[in-house]
Parts: sequence; C-alpha cells; structure tokens
Amino acid sequence: MKALSVAEQVELLSRGAAEIITVEDLEKALLRAEKENRPLRVKLGTDPSAPDIHLGHTVVYRKLKQFQDLGHDVYFLIGDFTGRIGDPTGKSSTRKALTKEEVEANAQTYAEQIFKILDPEKTNIVFNSKWLGAMSFEDVIRLASKYTVARMLERDDFSKRFQNNKPISIHEFFYPLMQGYDSVALKADVELGGTDQKFNLLVGRELQREYGQTPQVALMMPLLVGTDGTQKMSKSLGNYIGINEKPAEMYGKVMSIPDELMRDYYELVTDVPMDEIKTIFNNLEAGKTHPRDVKRRLAREIVKLYHGSSAAKEAEEAFDSVFRQGNIPDDIPEYKIPGSELDGENSIWIVKLLAAAGLVSSNSEARRMIKQRAVKVDGERVSADDEQVDVSYQRVVQVGKRRFARVVADK
Amino acid sequence: MKALSVAEQVELLSRGAAEIITVEDLEKALLRAEKENRPLRVKLGTDPSAPDIHLGHTVVYRKLKQFQDLGHDVYFLIGDFTGRIGDPTGKSSTRKALTKEEVEANAQTYAEQIFKILDPEKTNIVFNSKWLGAMSFEDVIRLASKYTVARMLERDDFSKRFQNNKPISIHEFFYPLMQGYDSVALKADVELGGTDQKFNLLVGRELQREYGQTPQVALMMPLLVGTDGTQKMSKSLGNYIGINEKPAEMYGKVMSIPDELMRDYYELVTDVPMDEIKTIFNNLEAGKTHPRDVKRRLAREIVKLYHGSSAAKEAEEAFDSVFRQGNIPDDIPEYKIPGSELDGENSIWIVKLLAAAGLVSSNSEARRMIKQRAVKVDGERVSADDEQVDVSYQRVVQVGKRRFARVVADK
Repeated sequence: MKALSVAEQVELLSRGAAEIITVEDLEKALLRAEKENRPLRVKLGTDPSAPDIHLGHTVVYRKLKQFQDLGHDVYFLIGDFTGRIGDPTGKSSTRKALTKEEVEANAQTYAEQIFKILDPEKTNIVFNSKWLGAMSFEDVIRLASKYTVARMLERDDFSKRFQNNKPISIHEFFYPLMQGYDSVALKADVELGGTDQKFNLLVGRELQREYGQTPQVALMMPLLVGTDGTQKMSKSLGNYIGINEKPAEMYGKVMSIPDELMRDYYELVTDVPMDEIKTIFNNLEAGKTHPRDVKRRLAREIVKLYHGSSAAKEAEEAFDSVFRQGNIPDDIPEYKIPGSELDGENSIWIVKLLAAAGLVSSNSEARRMIKQRAVKVDGERVSADDEQVDVSYQRVVQVGKRRFARVVADK
Repeated sequence: MKALSVAEQVELLSRGAAEIITVEDLEKALLRAEKENRPLRVKLGTDPSAPDIHLGHTVVYRKLKQFQDLGHDVYFLIGDFTGRIGDPTGKSSTRKALTKEEVEANAQTYAEQIFKILDPEKTNIVFNSKWLGAMSFEDVIRLASKYTVARMLERDDFSKRFQNNKPISIHEFFYPLMQGYDSVALKADVELGGTDQKFNLLVGRELQREYGQTPQVALMMPLLVGTDGTQKMSKSLGNYIGINEKPAEMYGKVMSIPDELMRDYYELVTDVPMDEIKTIFNNLEAGKTHPRDVKRRLAREIVKLYHGSSAAKEAEEAFDSVFRQGNIPDDIPEYKIPGSELDGENSIWIVKLLAAAGLVSSNSEARRMIKQRAVKVDGERVSADDEQVDVSYQRVVQVGKRRFARVVADK
C-alpha cells in the first residue's frame, strides 16, 4: 500500500473521521514524510487503567492500523505518569494512584488486546513517566507559562464547572498540559483521539508550536454508539461488544443494534471498502435488500475480524438456526430484567428468569419444564436447573412450543 | 524584654500593624511558644533582585526586629528559586532570570543592609531553591491540588486581568503557591508582609493547614508613603529615603515630607514609644508645639537609627544653619527640573541648574558667580563650576544674598 499517492492516503485516512485539524496540515505532513523518506509519527494516548477493549475503542485503533498499513510509525502512549499520581485530592475513586506493578500489568493486557488490531512490528508502546517524571519544578513552570488560564477555562467541562461555581483544582489544568507535552516529547506528526479529546489535542498542537515544532495534525474519530442505540459504547453502560467475546455472542450483539447504526458500524469497525458500503446502502434505501441481510453481513464482517471467516460463518448459522429456522414469531414479548434481580453482574439463574419473564407460573414449574427438556435459550436446550444465563445482550428464551420471550438486563 | 507577658507582647507587636490575621492566633502562637519553651519562627520573604533598602522596607524589618527583641527567631527568605526562573514568557524585563552568582551577590548586599536593623545572631537567611528546586512534577501536582482556580482568581490583580480579558499565564498561579509553600517548608508561625501581600500570606495559611500544620499568623504592615506625600515609597518614583544615605541628606529628606505623614513615620520608622508619640501629637493638635519642631525631632530620630546620635545632631545643626539661620525667606520660588534636563539619573550640572532655575541669566554669569564664591547649595558654598548637584530631593540654591530657589527633579 506504500505506493499510494498523498491524495489517496488523505482519502483513506479521512474515512469515518469526525474532524481533521487540518486536512491541509495532514497533506503537508504526508508530503514532508515522503520528501524526507521517513514515516509519520502517529500518537494515541490512553489512560493506564485496566483495559477491556470493545468495538468503541477499535474505532481509533483501526485508524492507527490504517496509518501502519501506509507505512507510518505508531506511538501507543500509556499515561502511566498520570496514573501514578492518581487524584491528589483523593476525591475521585476512579483515579486512585496505581502502583508500578499495576501499570505494568495493565500495559501487558493492553498489548495483548491491541495487537489483535495493530501490527506489533510498527507499534511503539511508550510511557510518559519517562519524560514527565524527569521534569523539575522549573520545567513545570516553563510548561505552564505556555498556556493561559482563560484559554484553559474554555474547555467544556472546566467552563461549565467554573460558571456553576464548582471547584476546579489548579492541578487539573495540568492534565491537558501533560497530554500536550507528550506530543512535544514524542515529536508527534499526528495525534488521534475521539471527538471528546479535541481540546487536549489542540493543546498539543499549541505546545508543539511553543516548543518550536511543527504542530501535529489532530485527527478525531466519532464516538461509537453502543448496542442500545443511544449512548456512547461503554462497559459500564452494558451496551458494548467486547473484542474478546465469543463469536456467537459477538454476532448476536451486533444483530441487536438498531438499524440506524448499521452504516456507522460498517464505516468505523469493518474493513468493507467505502465503495461497497455505498452500494449496500443505496440498495437498502431502494428496497432492493432487506435490513436484516445488511445487518447479517455486518455481524459476519465484525466476527471475521476477531475470529476469522469460518468462525463468522458458524456464528451466523447458529444464529439463523434459532431465529430463522426456529420459527420464532416476530412479535414476542420483551422483558427487561431489573438490576436488582440479577445474580451476577450480567447473569441470572435460569429458574428465576423463567418465572420473572412470565414464561412459567412458579419456580417448581420452571424446574419441571427444564427437567422435561422443554426450555431453550437462543435455540439451545437447557439441561440443568442451576444454569446462569448471560443477559448482557438480548437472548430468546423458549418454553415448550409456543411460549417465547426476549430477555435482556435493563441497564 | 523576654519577661513581657503574652498580652504585652501582642500590644507591642500590634504597633503600626495594618492587619493581623488573627490577633487571637497571634496570642495562641505566643502561648504555645511559651509553653513549649521555644521561639516563634517568623518569616519574611523577599525577591532576590538587587536591594537598595529605604525607609519603606524598614517598616517590616523593624517589625521583625521587635520579634527578635522578644526572643523569637527570624527567617529572612530570599526567593532565589523565583529569581532563577525569571519570567519564562520573557515578557517582563523586571523578572529576568538571575544567575546563581547574581543571586549570591544580591544576598550579600541584603545581609549588609538588613543587619543595620536586624540582629545577625537571631536571623536565618534562607533560600527557597533549597526545597522548591528539589520538587518533582509529582510534588508540584500535589501542591497545585491544594488550591482552586476560582480562589486564585480572587486575587486582586488576577481578577482585574481576568475580567478585562488580559492574559494570565498558568504559571503565574505558582508564585503565590510557591510563597505559600515556603511557609510550609519553614514551618512558619508568623509571616510578615506589606498589605499588598495579604493574598499570598493567606495562601500560606491555607497550604499549611492542607499540609497538616498550624496556620501561620499573617501580620501585615502598611506601605509607607514616600516623601512626595502621595505614593508608596519606592526607588523608581524617586520619593524614597535610603538607609545608606548620608546624615544630611536623610535629615533634609525627612524635613521635606508633608506634615500629614509625620505621625505614620513616627509610628512606623522610629523607636519613639507609643505613649510619647501620643503626647507629641496631642500637643501639636492643641497648638502647644510647632509642626516644624515635631518634624525636626522625627528627622533626628531617623538619622539617629542609622548614623547615631551625634551624626543626627550635626545634621540638624547643618540644616538649621541653612534654613533658619540662613535667613531664607519662606516663599522662595520652586523649580521642578524636567527629566530631560538632568545629566545623571538624579543630578544636574551646577551651571545648567543656576540658569535653568532662573538664578542667573547665562552660563557665563553662572561661572562668574561660582568663581566669586557667591553660590551655595543647602548653605554649602560651591567651589568649582564642574560640580554635579544631586536633585533627587529638594535642595535650596542661593546666588548672592537675595536670589533663592528650591529645586528638585520632577519625577
């Protein structure tokens, strides 16, 4: 792919991007790299807490991969310095200071997961404690002198808190400055991030200018909406599809997203070429294809990326056997299981589930039906009455021939 | 003086103070020191630029001396860390980064001057680079977490600039934090400063509380008004009386202050006991004494402090011989010399002066009068026509028997 022209590279890299500051700068950077016969230095920063990567994260990782495929170098930066400090006010439990060992363990987990997407040969995993930990008070003062209070207060969350008289500790100003300084230390040509990182990415641009470097290109990707169709995909909201999930689970979860999300998913988390995506959706709009088939292809494409073609095919067949060949009526009732009824984080005891969903009138009837082998979950027979059912995504529960319910944890 | 009770100490220390935060805390600190049989740790911070100490500075130094006389320990802190950094934006020429050698030379000059007032045995000269220079980025973050942006913006100069959309660089927030942290590092019981230091002194109190110490007492002294009677005494305004000035100069300058300032000067820069000061001004108000005599005593008291009693007496006699025995009329014309006519920073060539003040009609007349020994400055005969006259304070120039002028540089 190295043979691509700058214009072609720009087109490829713009796929799915929410905003590029600026496209002109990206062109210039690519031309500069070409002229100097060197790869671009592409940065992505991440916090050092324990990762559990889902499709939402892969939106940026896949963009990094595109850069790698074009021959560029990727700097996957783990913000261990910030992690080491934690929240010095002690007010935020999500920002507890991590030990060196914890950071290293998390980095290892990151590596295992991101290398399902990124090329290990072209990925540099770096830690910002290397340069931030070496800074003296004098260096810090110099860094802080490069940015004004008023401009820092323009950042969305700061400006809201300031206007509402909610306290902002002075040290909070340092998180954007540190992230920006990371770009200086890495001499980044490009920094990637979600649209929520725009402010910080721009701080990086300005600090680089202040330190005499060419400002990096800020390339922002949209935040992927989760399976619920409304909120940003996130583990804590339970609307996520993890890249470590089993093929059947992954396939099933993709099939549960609202139709309106399909196009974004195609563009952001599959390898289907843009031309083909256009055709698919033209046909869909023209009524030439059924939405379900567009979604089946999507699910297949995603499973294929993480488990290979044959696993994708198997997952599809299993899914079909339940939902198409299982003669499940289209309008079966849905039951959202309140968190208070769950037994595990995302699971519920099968007996309780049958009763709660109104498929049986009592626990003893539930046990009897299971014993009679009359209970299925997603078409698979339940063989024991002590099973836990994962309801983090939508499952179809069947009792006998005619009683059905779609069940899912209500998060 | 160690035998003074806490109440007596408080009364003495309150002399001339503009504000004490709080008097109750001061009492507590004195009681604590008494109980623990240790001196209080009293801090005064100063910037490390070249000092040229004038009466304005002595207001706080004399307060420090009172603490020393009561047996307490004084920490004279030279802010060399700040000086070493200078202004990293490079915008302020008054905050150029100083070299280590410059800071040391300035410290030496400070020592020579302050020991005219302070007891060297009970004075610790300390440099804040010792602890600030050893702080890591992590320590700085921790320090910055102790204070909020909103409260920092309450500081007068910050709030004005913020409201007027004038830029405030983030590093500027560190000057108060550093000064405050100095109190933590020194475990200060009391910090002295001018009223313009109130905000910074209070930051010290809060940081000490945050770092688990008893908050220092903030003792603020008024800013001494200069000889012009309107502005704070300052070298750059030319309205100052330096403690290194010669007795005659010092005496003459004190005599030139407006009558309204006399009481403040008595209280803030002389050793005259408060009771006596009250009597002096009661008599003055009752018309029992002449203002000039009150001022003569003031001038004498001040000269005495820096040059001893006999020098003070001599200075007074010299002054009297010019202004009282010299039969100088009361309403002689005054001439303010524009800066453009000065030859040195504060001096003018005698020939030019005589012409400019209209005492002679030409330079050649001026030369002739000097040759005829008919020219006097403050009653002293001018012997050569190449003399430079210091006009930083008001001088009386006389030509022959009847031509007089008061002259002073117009600053």
